[in-house]
Order: sequence, then structure tokens, then C-alpha cells
Amino acid sequence: MADEMNAVIDLGSNSVRVVIYEHGPSGTQKEIDTLKQSVRLTSHLDENNVITETGIQLTVQVVGLFKQLCDSYGVVEIIGVATQAVRVAVNRDELLNRIFAETGIRFRVITGEEEARYGYLAAVNSLPLEDGITVDVGGGSTEITYFRQRNLIHYASIPYGAVSLTKEFTRNDPTPSKILEAMNRAIENQLDRYPWLEGLGCPVIGMGGTARTVARVHQDRRKYPLKILHGYEMCPMEVTAMLDMVCSMPVKKRSKIGGLSGERADIIVAGIAILDQVLKRVRASKFVISNKGLRDGILIEQVLRTRGEQLLPDMLVHSIANIHVHFHLDRQHAIQVWKLTGQLLSEMVKHNWLPDSSEMRRCLHVASMLHDIGRTISIYNTRDHNFYLLLQVPLFGVSHRERLIAAAITAFKSTKQTNRALVSYQELLEDEDFTTITRLGVLLGLVKTLDRTSTGAVQSIDLLRDQGEWILRVHAQKPLGLQLNLALEWLKEWRKVFQREIRLEVDPFEQSLGV
Amino acid sequence: MADEMNAVIDLGSNSVRVVIYEHGPSGTQKEIDTLKQSVRLTSHLDENNVITETGIQLTVQVVGLFKQLCDSYGVVEIIGVATQAVRVAVNRDELLNRIFAETGIRFRVITGEEEARYGYLAAVNSLPLEDGITVDVGGGSTEITYFRQRNLIHYASIPYGAVSLTKEFTRNDPTPSKILEAMNRAIENQLDRYPWLEGLGCPVIGMGGTARTVARVHQDRRKYPLKILHGYEMCPMEVTAMLDMVCSMPVKKRSKIGGLSGERADIIVAGIAILDQVLKRVRASKFVISNKGLRDGILIEQVLRTRGEQLLPDMLVHSIANIHVHFHLDRQHAIQVWKLTGQLLSEMVKHNWLPDSSEMRRCLHVASMLHDIGRTISIYNTRDHNFYLLLQVPLFGVSHRERLIAAAITAFKSTKQTNRALVSYQELLEDEDFTTITRLGVLLGLVKTLDRTSTGAVQSIDLLRDQGEWILRVHAQKPLGLQLNLALEWLKEWRKVFQREIRLEVDPFEQSLGV
Repeated sequence: MADEMNAVIDLGSNSVRVVIYEHGPSGTQKEIDTLKQSVRLTSHLDENNVITETGIQLTVQVVGLFKQLCDSYGVVEIIGVATQAVRVAVNRDELLNRIFAETGIRFRVITGEEEARYGYLAAVNSLPLEDGITVDVGGGSTEITYFRQRNLIHYASIPYGAVSLTKEFTRNDPTPSKILEAMNRAIENQLDRYPWLEGLGCPVIGMGGTARTVARVHQDRRKYPLKILHGYEMCPMEVTAMLDMVCSMPVKKRSKIGGLSGERADIIVAGIAILDQVLKRVRASKFVISNKGLRDGILIEQVLRTRGEQLLPDMLVHSIANIHVHFHLDRQHAIQVWKLTGQLLSEMVKHNWLPDSSEMRRCLHVASMLHDIGRTISIYNTRDHNFYLLLQVPLFGVSHRERLIAAAITAFKSTKQTNRALVSYQELLEDEDFTTITRLGVLLGLVKTLDRTSTGAVQSIDLLRDQGEWILRVHAQKPLGLQLNLALEWLKEWRKVFQREIRLEVDPFEQSLGV
Repeated sequence: MADEMNAVIDLGSNSVRVVIYEHGPSGTQKEIDTLKQSVRLTSHLDENNVITETGIQLTVQVVGLFKQLCDSYGVVEIIGVATQAVRVAVNRDELLNRIFAETGIRFRVITGEEEARYGYLAAVNSLPLEDGITVDVGGGSTEITYFRQRNLIHYASIPYGAVSLTKEFTRNDPTPSKILEAMNRAIENQLDRYPWLEGLGCPVIGMGGTARTVARVHQDRRKYPLKILHGYEMCPMEVTAMLDMVCSMPVKKRSKIGGLSGERADIIVAGIAILDQVLKRVRASKFVISNKGLRDGILIEQVLRTRGEQLLPDMLVHSIANIHVHFHLDRQHAIQVWKLTGQLLSEMVKHNWLPDSSEMRRCLHVASMLHDIGRTISIYNTRDHNFYLLLQVPLFGVSHRERLIAAAITAFKSTKQTNRALVSYQELLEDEDFTTITRLGVLLGLVKTLDRTSTGAVQSIDLLRDQGEWILRVHAQKPLGLQLNLALEWLKEWRKVFQREIRLEVDPFEQSLGV
């Protein structure tokens, strides 16, 4: 499956989307292109659940357009899936046959259970949560799952989505509280069918356009310094507050809210109402946004099948491998640097130079594996590029704060410069994070130079105390030359950061230059 | 010369630097790596201009280290050049022979005239100036040229650089005004030998570490929103003010100045004094920083030789071609988009929708040719990536303001979003620039979708008025399908920006979708 192009087209009740992927070596993949068209198929269902002729024509045409895009990339396989609006349509066969006749793409109508399962697969392979509820508010239905220790336990599908619920209830603008109450009752009646939801107290993961909009609006209001939705966390109460806010506004005014797109202004009340009811029913510990959903679940299923696995054993490792492929990074060099920084971290923890923290280790892992990414933009200002890219690439299994720390580690030059660069990110960081960043920054800075020429010359690195003196002992297979010289430059910064004398020794002995 | 690795090692009087390049198709090139070691060869010259044994050993070792780095990239040709410190050394042959014996690299000692010429070549092929003076303050000498209409007219070499002038004069810390006066007199005596410098009134282009430091400190103080040194402009008076400031501070305090590195704190007074004297002698219209210098001059000479040219006919076109290669962009698509945006701009100027401005055209050119660059980072948030990258890539022949406008054009989504995103860049922009950005942003937004599938389907585009109605007429060779649909979405934004009704027509006639 090397370097093969695949696409997934998701014929949803609100919009049709395509994502084109390239499958690379050893189960890696890269997103090549994506496009969305708002078809609102739900609105083209008449009172007898028949998709109107206009609705059919429109859908056939949009799928045809996406086929064009796929063709322009030489996509070899297109997976087409259809959800709620097609599920309920009495003339679904006609629609699918006409799509097939026009485009050659055979769409599969997936069940609510399958849809829910794809959402679950996307979540547990991209968010570091052991237990949780996924809620995917679509246009025509909402899919819910409950997972424990990353295993799927329950699923639910309720026949209301942001579009269909709006269609059924909202006739007034702004939404009067009576209407909201009626909507809530309808949702509650549906949720009553799944008593296992009640009071689980776990995190609720929101998927789909409504959840993304909630996160965008929230980030916009608090001027959140990162432009990352996936993994963003909110209090359930904040979702309720947002629902109250949008209810009280006419549609026209809503579309002026920062983060809310005009085409969602009318259906946002219904969408948030569903999320809000689920959060309340579960008594959720927190609300977490997932930018990954159905399409990603389909992709991950393919990847897992290739790898012969049920779940990704380590989403962080997998996402780093994807980034290495995407940016053509020198993977051997990255692995060598992480081997050495990991060793040195353990040594420093052993000698009480650093506290023992799995979070710190994870940050150093990410920073070590991706420390060269900025060079893909330019060999100048690479630290800035590292910082920018680490906050942008698709990295899973770390929190926003950990990602920020890792980014700052790869951008480290000096304590002064770090403190200046992070001013606008302060709200995300604890005081001790600044110390962590400078310490791990200088650690990575020194170690990465030991493989500056990517020769893998260093076998291991120890920290030891000999006659009251701290020594960093580097075991090398080949002469280090240049690399030793560069490491010695970092040693100056190292002494400043740790405020301890330390000597660098190479075994077998090698003389360094006095530059 | 396709995809061949080359390197230039520049054995300067203050530092030794290596740059590794990859030569690509049709005279393009990409910088792969760079490294610097502060050797301060000038300090290793004794009173009889003999390089000490320590100095020789150190230099041989550093060149050996750089050779290691070159080897790790498989560099096939290393060009080694040595400047002032070696020029004046009586035992230069010994040094060069020992370097050759150890590393196999044959260094060429270039004359002051050659050095000056390389600086000139770097400047006139990377800065949009017709006339100017280049001043390259090195460690041991300063090279000056005067060019008119991009042709080299005069050159000068004075035997003082930041290191050698410091060595001769500064014994006190901070620098007393008497010492500064003595330094100034020594510089003036040297400049007196070149009467053609007097009162030219043209821009002075500063090269080398001193000039870069001056720019960095200046940008830091005024919190300049761009992180670009090349092409940065200052008033000559501001250089004098900075000289006064550093003179009045002890070395230790100087190294705390934002933008000034510790290893330059002692020699900065002498370095700025040279720049200041040249600026005064020339009665410079402005001081412009060049990040390009000797090494880039050597590279550009190679490129020009391959192309059979004396000067780059168009540095902007050349730098865009380099960026296309570096980022693996679809050049055919970029050219097609620029063909159409350029046509439409002309049409809009003709019909008085837009003013006629070569600057505006240049911004649209850059934006059109690079509008897809953000996709190399990720297919999500591409507008943000466009904005970031356009402010980072090596783009020559545009001012900082033009580059910012071009970046904002590629990041355009809506007027509201543009105005928000540019808040921190306001000091660089005129009021009308915001209008330019939204207008050209919507123009590019619409046109780029017409080649969304990179099929080159559209031949031309006209703006015309028919029975009181404005029509955008697109002449297509193939059905546009998807692209027409996407263009129609942009037309809504277009109407908002220009506040005029307009219709899109495809010739031959094609029906669009009503999504």
C-alpha cells in the first residue's frame, strides 16, 4: 500500500466532504487535500422522507465534483459512506444508483452503530483518554458511544441532528425559551432510551461541526493563544452558557460572533442543545473537542487493518512517524537524538538534577523527535520555525500545554529569550514549566549537536560524579570532531541554566578545540 | 549541475563560515545547512603579521570540521576563500598549505577588490535598488563599492574591520569620547583616499555582522513586527544614535542589549563607527541592511555563469522559482493562477475598479505565485501557514511592506478577519493597504479556485459591462465543474468587498450548481 492515494467521501446530512490521503511506508499516511460543500440533504427530504429530485441532482453533482478532484490527484480508491439523511430516505437506492451511474462510486449506507463506532475509533486513537463518551452531532442524527480503557462498551444513535432538530422546532428568531424547552424534552426522550448514560462522570468528547464551532467561539472570546481545536477542553457549564447566549440572539446577530460561520448561525441552537443535554445527562467531568470524526475513523480502520491491530498502541509514536514522512525528516537522526536525550534525562533524574515526571519525559520525547522540523522551512530562524510547526502539525497523545512546552524546548536558545517568547502563552503554563523548558531546552540543545552530522557516532551518555566534580561522559564509536566542539558551546549555557560546574568527557578520550 | 551539492567556506578575519547549497534545475538553488565558528584570526596575528602556530592549528581544525559537515551531505565541490587576515599574513602560504594537507581544500585568497565585488553582486541581485553604496564591515577590513543602475562603478577597501580597529584603539571600557574621536579620524583618513564617496546621497547598504547587529537591536527596541533583516531600512541618524549608546556602556552591559550577542559586545563600537563614518561621508539617503554578502556573491556568480548572464534580470522571479523548488510547489498551477489574476487586475484597472499601481501588481504577483505554499505545512489552517511562510521565505525584490501585503492577500478570507489579523502590523501599513489587501484577496481567492484541480482549463478572463450589468467572463477550454462552483462561493465575498453586483459567465456556457 506504499504511496497509494485514497479518498473518503462522507455524504452527511448537512454537508458532503472529501478527504484525500496518501498512504506511505509502514502504515503512515498524509492528508493531501480536503473540500466540503454544504448540501443540506436533510432539507431536501420531503414530509414522506423522499429525497426530492433537486436533492438528488445536487448530490449527484457534488459527488461528481469531488470525483474530479480525486481524479486530478490520481486517487485509486474512493470509499463513499452515507449517513442519516440517506439512511431514512425511502428512495435511497435511487439516489445511490444515480450516483454510481454518474461517478462510478458505490456508496455504502452505514448504520448508526457503524457511524458511532467510527467516531469512537477516531477518538481513542487521537486523544489521550482511557474512558469517555463520544458525541458526534451530525446534520440528521447524533451518534454516541461510551468507551472504557479504550474499549467500546455502548453505543447510541438518536435521530436528531443540528439540521433536523432545527427543522422540527425552530420557527422563531431569536429562539424563545419555550422552543428551547421543547427541543430539550425531545432530546431527553431520546436519551432516556440509554440509561447507561446517566451519571457516568467521565469526559464527553464532542465531534462534528457544532462541537468545533463551540470550541472556536470559546477560544475567540478568551483569546486562546493556540490555534488548535483538537483536544481543547471546556467546562460543561461553559457549553450551557453558550447555549443561552445564542438562544437570545437573532440569527443575523449570531453570524457576527467570532468563530461562528454564517452558514451555521441558524442551526447552532439545536446543535448545542444536543451537546448540552448529553453533558448534563452524563454529568461530564469535562468537554473535550475532537477535530477527528467519521472520516478519520474510516482511515484509521484501514491503517489498523494494515498493521493487524485493534487500536494504535501509541498514538504519539504513530503521529510522530506521520510527521517524519510528511516533512521528509531524517528519522534515524531523530531516533538517535531521542535515544540520547532519554538516557541523559534518566541519568539526571537518578542524580536528582531533575524531578521524575512522565509528562516531562513526553515533552522531551516530542521535542527530540521533531527538533529538526524548522529546517524544512529555512536554515535561518530555525528555532522560530520549530516553535511554529510544533504548534501546527497533527500531533496526538499530548495535551495543549505539553505541546507548547515541547515547542518551546525545540526553540530554546537562552533563558532570557525563552521567557520573552512565551509571554503571550503564560495563561497556559505553570511557573515551573518555564524551568522545565530551559532545562530540557539546554539538554536537547547539547545532545542534538552530538549527532549534528547524523553519523550516529555516540553510543551512550552518562552523568557521573567523580571526586566532587560532575562529568558528562559521552561514549563514542567514531571521533566526534565538529560535534564535540558544538557540544562544548552548549555546555556554557548548560552551566548557566543548572548553575553547576560540569565537564564533558569523551570516551575514548578525544581532544576538543579551544574555539 | 542538477541537484549537485556545493559549499562555500569563507575564512574571515572574525569568523569562519560554511554554507551548503543544492543546485536544482534551471539555475535554482536551495540552502541546505550553515554553520559558523568564531576563530578571530585577526587576534592570532602577531605584531609582525605572522599567524601564530595556535592560530594556524585552530584554523586548520575548524576547516576540518566544516569538511566533515560537507562530507556528511555528500558535497562535491567546496569553494574556499580567505580574506583580510590571511591577505596580510606573511605566512599565509604555510596556513593554506597546511589546510590543504589536512582537508584537501585549496583556499583562494581574494583581493579586497574581489571581496568588494562579491558584496556588490549579492546586493544588486537581492535588493531592489538601482544605485547605492555597499559597505561590508568584516573583522579585518571593510569593503566598499558604488554602483549605478546596478553596474559597479567604484570600489574601495580599507584595512580596518570591527576586530582590527578594536585591537588598535580600544583599551578602555566604556569607550571614552577621545578614543572614539581617534577611531573616527583613522577611518576618515582611509575614506579620504576615495573622494568619489563624498556626498553621493544614495542609499548605503550595510553587510556583515555589525550591520546585522545594528538592525537587530533597532528592531528589538521598536518591537518591529517582522522578523526579517534583509532589506530593513533605517535613518542614518539612528546609526549615529546607536553608536553613542554603545560607547557609553561597559562591554558587560552591552551584551544585555536585546539583539546584541555577547561575542560581539566588545567589537561593536568599532564596527558601528565605520558604518557611521561611511554614512556621513556619503550623506546617505537611508541605511539598508543586507543579510546577503560575500558567500552569496560567490554563489550568485556561479548561478549567473550557468545562466550566461551578468546580473539576474529579475530577482523577484528568480527567488520565487527557488521557493517553488524548495517547497515542491506545483509551478504550472502557480503560473496559471498568476496569468489569470494578472489579466483580471488589468481588466479591473481598465474599468476603474482598481487604481493602476505597479506596487499592487507586484504584491498580487507574489501572492498568486505562492498562494499554495501553506499547504506544504498542512491542509488545515492553510491561510495562517501562507501568512507565516510568506514572511519567512527568501523573497527578493519586494519591500517589507509589499511582502506583508502579499502575505495578507494569500491569507484573505473576509474583510473582518483581515482587519483582525493585521492589528499587530498596523505600523507597517498605510490605511489604503487594508483596502488593497481585501480587494486583491478576493480577486485571488476567486481566481485560484478556477484552477483548483490544476487542469489549466481557463484560458482567459474578462470584465465587461453589458446592459448596465457587470459580468466576469471566463473562457474555458474544458468544463469547469467543481471549480465553477467554488468560484461562485467567492463571488459572494467579492460583492461584499466591491459593493457592486456582478455575474460570472462561462464561455462556452456552462451551468453551475445551486449549492
